[in-house]
Amino acid sequence: MMRRLYFHKDFDRGVKGTYDWLVDETRELGEALEKGDKKQLESEFADVIAWLASLANVVNVDLQKATLDKYANVCPKCKRSPCQCPFKKGPKGVSAPRL
Amino acid sequence: MMRRLYFHKDFDRGVKGTYDWLVDETRELGEALEKGDKKQLESEFADVIAWLASLANVVNVDLQKATLDKYANVCPKCKRSPCQCPFKKGPKGVSAPRL
Repeated sequence: MMRRLYFHKDFDRGVKGTYDWLVDETRELGEALEKGDKKQLESEFADVIAWLASLANVVNVDLQKATLDKYANVCPKCKRSPCQCPFKKGPKGVSAPRL
Repeated sequence: MMRRLYFHKDFDRGVKGTYDWLVDETRELGEALEKGDKKQLESEFADVIAWLASLANVVNVDLQKATLDKYANVCPKCKRSPCQCPFKKGPKGVSAPRL
């Protein structure tokens, strides 16, 4: 869907410009999380996934396939569902449990 | 799928911690884009969407519904497919064409 809607513009914009939009939308999602308005929050989630899909199209990655290949019903690290990796509160200075 | 795998940990981590992971994975996606390794790129796209789904679960947003509500086959701004909004290269100092 995003390919049909936006690929002509995303391709012209290129990898760097499209990634910059993704980062900007992720920042806006953070602001919406602080405000807590449900409608705005849904809109910002949609924007982040739209730009992520655009970026995937630009670099020719199948977003759905990549996600299912990695998260195929079990955690890719501990191979269990639900995940039983050691709990990590935040990313700073620790290894991400899903890498 | 992400709810079953990770909700018990995402809920304990909370909004701020889960958002921090999303930002960190988005940064890693940027690094992978610079390197250009296809397998690593696919893996990082999967991680970003996994954390986005986790965050949506924590704040009780239906990610798929939110996306389809906003991007229902036409651009939400110009209402056309493909989008015919004025072209914007990057986000700095301009209005995002999809807001």
